[in-house]
Amino acid sequence: MPLSADLASTENLLADRVRTARPSEVRKVFRAAQKPGIISFANGAPYLGALPFEQLAAAAQRILSDNGPVSLQYGASQGIAELRRHICTLMKLEGIVAAPDDVIVTSGSQQALDLAARILVNPDDVIFAEAPSYAGGMAVFTGYQAQIVHVPMDADGLIPEELERAIAEVRASGRTAKGLYTIPNFQNPGGVNLSVERRRRVGEICRDNGLLIFEDNPYGLLGFDGATLPAIQPDFPDITMYFGSFSKMIAPGLRLGWVLPPAALHHHFVNTSETTLLNPPVYNQQLLSTYLDDPAWQDKLNEYRNIYREKFTALVETLERVMPDGTSWNRPTGGFYLWVTLPDGIDAEALVYECIERGVVYVPGTAFYTDGRGRNELRLSFCLPTVDEIREGAALMGELFTAAAGSAAATKVAAG
Amino acid sequence: MPLSADLASTENLLADRVRTARPSEVRKVFRAAQKPGIISFANGAPYLGALPFEQLAAAAQRILSDNGPVSLQYGASQGIAELRRHICTLMKLEGIVAAPDDVIVTSGSQQALDLAARILVNPDDVIFAEAPSYAGGMAVFTGYQAQIVHVPMDADGLIPEELERAIAEVRASGRTAKGLYTIPNFQNPGGVNLSVERRRRVGEICRDNGLLIFEDNPYGLLGFDGATLPAIQPDFPDITMYFGSFSKMIAPGLRLGWVLPPAALHHHFVNTSETTLLNPPVYNQQLLSTYLDDPAWQDKLNEYRNIYREKFTALVETLERVMPDGTSWNRPTGGFYLWVTLPDGIDAEALVYECIERGVVYVPGTAFYTDGRGRNELRLSFCLPTVDEIREGAALMGELFTAAAGSAAATKVAAG
Repeated sequence: MPLSADLASTENLLADRVRTARPSEVRKVFRAAQKPGIISFANGAPYLGALPFEQLAAAAQRILSDNGPVSLQYGASQGIAELRRHICTLMKLEGIVAAPDDVIVTSGSQQALDLAARILVNPDDVIFAEAPSYAGGMAVFTGYQAQIVHVPMDADGLIPEELERAIAEVRASGRTAKGLYTIPNFQNPGGVNLSVERRRRVGEICRDNGLLIFEDNPYGLLGFDGATLPAIQPDFPDITMYFGSFSKMIAPGLRLGWVLPPAALHHHFVNTSETTLLNPPVYNQQLLSTYLDDPAWQDKLNEYRNIYREKFTALVETLERVMPDGTSWNRPTGGFYLWVTLPDGIDAEALVYECIERGVVYVPGTAFYTDGRGRNELRLSFCLPTVDEIREGAALMGELFTAAAGSAAATKVAAG
Repeated sequence: MPLSADLASTENLLADRVRTARPSEVRKVFRAAQKPGIISFANGAPYLGALPFEQLAAAAQRILSDNGPVSLQYGASQGIAELRRHICTLMKLEGIVAAPDDVIVTSGSQQALDLAARILVNPDDVIFAEAPSYAGGMAVFTGYQAQIVHVPMDADGLIPEELERAIAEVRASGRTAKGLYTIPNFQNPGGVNLSVERRRRVGEICRDNGLLIFEDNPYGLLGFDGATLPAIQPDFPDITMYFGSFSKMIAPGLRLGWVLPPAALHHHFVNTSETTLLNPPVYNQQLLSTYLDDPAWQDKLNEYRNIYREKFTALVETLERVMPDGTSWNRPTGGFYLWVTLPDGIDAEALVYECIERGVVYVPGTAFYTDGRGRNELRLSFCLPTVDEIREGAALMGELFTAAAGSAAATKVAAG
């Protein structure tokens, strides 16, 4: 059957928001990395081996036996009340005071981010984000045709003065400064925390400039020592969307997260979630609620903190031995990620395919900027591989980067 | 803390796509109907009482015991291969030939519709839809600022000549005719089937006019006698998005559906699903796959067909006794819905709140049009209430409408 003229080019049919999207480099890397036995520093996937699967399996059975016609039926768009109660208890650990009615359960915090962008972002609105920032978060905003403007970080997170400067520049250019997307705890991919003083300062800057705050916090309870920092939301509840996730601290497979929006926007989140998904799965919410009913889940979380600290330590110890001179990285105190800067002239994006050939994969730094920066940077996730894999994988990377540094230096000498 | 000037009005912050959305009358009705013991003809929720919960519960336990670290981890954006294989087998029943790689599993077909609209709809694009049509489907399109243009139906479904006329009118007005949203089987809310002849004719009209087809088919396997009609997709694969759902034929609580897009659009669906949700829950997909592995699920489906036929029969028998003269309804041969037209002058939207007071709820016809029509129409879902509830609820409605018809007639006489 011949294609009609319009259909000869699919591009003609696409919505502008899709047509203008830039292809994702990360997807290419992940596709190339799909080979058996590869050691992955690329995935932000939690290690699940320590979960009490027998207990979860028993709960999963009991829920369906006792309550099947409710578990497998449609449910409230906002999520089930039990889970929203647990979420309020969790948020209290970071100083957030909220009632279950204020919270909207979502199919992962990714859906919550998508709802927020959909409700609030017009084409060409500017969203500020840390430099570097979570690729999947920025993709949500650019998916609604927002422009991302990066704001520099240092060891204490986003630099308030830089945010002020960036807002002024955006304003001067006639664009709409809509909001700040920030991951204040164990930032993805930078691994840094926004200091307590800066949280308040950053919030004030946003408030005084009429900006919204998109506070994305999947890692807040995953500090190696269990310490938590106060959220931004409590001081700026009328402008902050707080996003939480069960994916990193319990399990991503349930696809459950939440959003606590400003009260004035609450009904928009409920209605938009209903329009796009009807409701998050009731069964999954019941299973998670049951797991959270038993206080033992917090011991499990502590166990995970130790596991991740051990993996982090193994990674850093190996990197110190194997990486070429001039390589630097930060010292996160929790979360999943280490941010590595290679010596100038080493191209982490070009080298990743060779690295995959040798059996290791990481995410090139360019994935975390929307402006082409990051060629000599990379993110290493230490959450999923075992300690042995971490040592082996880091050693392999070290060889590759050391060789690359050698040729880069040789080229420099030859050129000089 | 004082609100900044911008925040004094939340409306100023909203994206245009949300600001311009009209408030949903159905939500008001559903809120009013949340009282214990109400008999609901409003929900499109399947009856779940006949599901083999013990079998499902055992499978749910086994999957987590055997395979927990996979079930509760992130998964492929496209969905798990086993489920996509089952989906291909299912689609074959309606004449669709597809490979598992062609299919994208979604978090309910609602998410699939949302993906399609997001990928393909620009603001002010026109989407044609049956008059009346599924409120939640139209809301997805209008959520991306599409305009819905209704096309009349008769007992054989959408009228091809009317579609041609509507396309010509839209073109003449300078607007973009983007696609047709159709529910060809046991249409929601009309209960009618698009005849086989018209399927081809409607497809040709779309193809010849460069329109996409959004073929939404949650009810296709729910004919009372088990007969299925051929899908539109096989004859027009390059322009058709076919949407399937497990919500109506198995259980909505798993939140699983799928889309089969044209090959040229496939990667956009995978990528956009990843951006908005990462992936549908692996555990739910495994549980559903396991259920479909046992051919007994088809006997269960047959059992459901009989249950729904019995409910439908009870509803129609009662309506014949109780509804005022001049009321009419169609004779669906499957699905969940009966479409009722009241005598002129009876306002189903105004009366629904009185009906709720008396303990019964339906959805007023106005919910299924975007142009204000349908005041003397209503949708009755016979899927969820028991046969006894159906008889009792229909009798209550009959009293109310008969009284309303009496006053309407009296007013007419007085006015005459």
